[in-house]
Amino acid sequence: MSQTSHPDSPIEQDRVGQALRAIAQRDGELQAFVWHAEAVEATPAAGGRLAGMPFAVKDIIDVAGMPTRYGAREMAPDLKLFDASSVAQLREAGAVPVGKTVTAEFAHVVPGATRNPHLPTHTPGGSSSGSAAAVAAGMVDMALGTQTGGSVIRPAAFCGVVGYKPSFGRVHRGGMQVLCDTLDTLGWFTRSVDDALAVAAVLMSLDLAPGSGTAAARRAPKVAVLPCSRLGTLSAAAENALAQCVERLQAQGAAVIRPDLDDDVDTLVAAHATVMRYEFARGLLPIARTRPQSVHATTHDTVRKGLEIGHGDYLEQQHLRAQVAARWAARLADVDFIVTPSAPGEAPAGLDNTGSSIYNRIWSLLGWPCIHLPTARGQLGLPVGVQWVGLPDTDAALLQWAAALHASIDTRVAR
Amino acid sequence: MSQTSHPDSPIEQDRVGQALRAIAQRDGELQAFVWHAEAVEATPAAGGRLAGMPFAVKDIIDVAGMPTRYGAREMAPDLKLFDASSVAQLREAGAVPVGKTVTAEFAHVVPGATRNPHLPTHTPGGSSSGSAAAVAAGMVDMALGTQTGGSVIRPAAFCGVVGYKPSFGRVHRGGMQVLCDTLDTLGWFTRSVDDALAVAAVLMSLDLAPGSGTAAARRAPKVAVLPCSRLGTLSAAAENALAQCVERLQAQGAAVIRPDLDDDVDTLVAAHATVMRYEFARGLLPIARTRPQSVHATTHDTVRKGLEIGHGDYLEQQHLRAQVAARWAARLADVDFIVTPSAPGEAPAGLDNTGSSIYNRIWSLLGWPCIHLPTARGQLGLPVGVQWVGLPDTDAALLQWAAALHASIDTRVAR
Repeated sequence: MSQTSHPDSPIEQDRVGQALRAIAQRDGELQAFVWHAEAVEATPAAGGRLAGMPFAVKDIIDVAGMPTRYGAREMAPDLKLFDASSVAQLREAGAVPVGKTVTAEFAHVVPGATRNPHLPTHTPGGSSSGSAAAVAAGMVDMALGTQTGGSVIRPAAFCGVVGYKPSFGRVHRGGMQVLCDTLDTLGWFTRSVDDALAVAAVLMSLDLAPGSGTAAARRAPKVAVLPCSRLGTLSAAAENALAQCVERLQAQGAAVIRPDLDDDVDTLVAAHATVMRYEFARGLLPIARTRPQSVHATTHDTVRKGLEIGHGDYLEQQHLRAQVAARWAARLADVDFIVTPSAPGEAPAGLDNTGSSIYNRIWSLLGWPCIHLPTARGQLGLPVGVQWVGLPDTDAALLQWAAALHASIDTRVAR
Repeated sequence: MSQTSHPDSPIEQDRVGQALRAIAQRDGELQAFVWHAEAVEATPAAGGRLAGMPFAVKDIIDVAGMPTRYGAREMAPDLKLFDASSVAQLREAGAVPVGKTVTAEFAHVVPGATRNPHLPTHTPGGSSSGSAAAVAAGMVDMALGTQTGGSVIRPAAFCGVVGYKPSFGRVHRGGMQVLCDTLDTLGWFTRSVDDALAVAAVLMSLDLAPGSGTAAARRAPKVAVLPCSRLGTLSAAAENALAQCVERLQAQGAAVIRPDLDDDVDTLVAAHATVMRYEFARGLLPIARTRPQSVHATTHDTVRKGLEIGHGDYLEQQHLRAQVAARWAARLADVDFIVTPSAPGEAPAGLDNTGSSIYNRIWSLLGWPCIHLPTARGQLGLPVGVQWVGLPDTDAALLQWAAALHASIDTRVAR
């Protein structure tokens, strides 16, 4: 929110009304929503930090009075009695939930129908597809998503919005369908870093004044660049976004280091695969068994294969995860943030898959806070950008650095 | 299970029938159940490790076809569509859920109506009150519970059954109401360590053959004794149970160390309080706001006070937690298990509170695996015992040590 909010003012009521009109107009084409309110009652006690902010909620997170369907093929449309903790916290701060957004089936891999607002034949990314698209299309100011592999940062990159995945374990997951207990993290999409920061202040009880980002810019940051080159080849646009970001940070006096962590990256990618498969299988087991028709063959396959992983293999990967996390925390202790790719490039064509999460998974496994910053457009005119990553529990600082420096690395704006 | 199980045999069908008859006969007095099946259909594919084992489920964990009411005063009795992950895993192994057991309101502090099977004017402990009582009274062979402070180990101690709380994060919490995301751990109650081990094998995908406990006993263990004396005064019976346990282990050749960790214990108790209050408040917020009449004033108070804790204070305590955990893991690395009190003494009189969890909270915070072993009776004839604690992810070894050595420290059995 760039404007100061006044509860119950016509302007505030209007933001919610505007959101509902935008959804009615555009969602037929974009299909970001699986359910939305027709009208939202005036909220009497809306005098919080997010007063009047319309927001959308990924459909694996409960909102009182709305259904939760998990992107599943057949799911009873019962209205939920309670908000998720995150939704209740946002409501307390004056934000207004207006609908539920498309998710890949149980936040796994089978995509929903959402289209990329920048080019409707391309994927918006997943699994938080509808949330990213709804914010990108201006239908809502903010949307909640979740990340197990790359389900916040990747759709943010493909849709050209700010995506924020906080430090693991620091935003309450009550009322959210947790499938991978040691990975799943609730995150959010906004159009500005200031809005991402305002949402963080509410969901993490952070003492962050609006505009506090400027304080961080009083000195130049120390930055680690991690291209993760062994993970694949970046498109020219993504490569350029990364290079431009580093160059512009250096031009402002940033100290840049380029640590060689490639072997650890390989270890983390492998560990993420085992941990995710083990946990997903056990999380999906009840659905696969009780309602086999609710989920696709791919998901049944995930369950079958994941159940074959034993405790020993799982623990070994969990221990490698902890070892690398400790080593990196020591190695990068004096770094303000890490600059690394968000995605291999622009959103790929087609709606049958949601693109690669290869640059996101290691951060999901480490549980470190990540932000996607849109900074440029690629050959097709679709958004690209960079991912900044903080050390664990540096959420406030990471958001402040991003608030202070996003404009300076955004090549879309004239300087 | 002390007997080998045969699917679909009359004996197996009989165990479930027997459970239902026992519930019908005894539950009017004990009030361990909030809901139970009248009859359970024969399960066709019941050929798993737990085939035919009747079990009960704490009423904050979902079972398909049964209601979940969270111990709340007013709660819509809708039948759940899906099992919790844990319940689905147990069902896959042939176990049969027969009912939902009394929990303190939202697994917090306001107690339910359950009575202690050993003396009905005394508390069974909480918050997993019904689960502990149902196993102690022989109504079911096993019951699921959860622990945030001491909600598995304390009721196990007061009811004289085996209680097991696994390493944090290693049993899937899907379908369980998580209120404190970094504390809540699913655990279980059984009458024997062998049964606890069989359940662990299923819920943790452990490769543990029945009777594998004997392997552990080929050498004598190295044990750390932690009386935690600054936490309060033990009753004579609890003091004696601890002393007898150590004496008998030493008689079998166990090496015993007595590290002085009292300062850290104080730190952990304080950290647990802040972390629990912070998370509980955010977990309960949706209920307190949407259905204020569902919860007692005590719970509203918890929400109000917990919301006042800011992110900085919370993080500070989380970081202390991690520091002490790392220090203790290094200090106790060569120890097989820790011997420490489970509870201050026998179950206190009255049903208006569930007794003290002071000896359990630090282990909930550390996330280390704990087992309660009943070993004696106190002055009133109520059960007492000891708590054994393993290092993180030593669940298999801890259960094997307990299986091998429980009989030798159980003063209730003639040697």
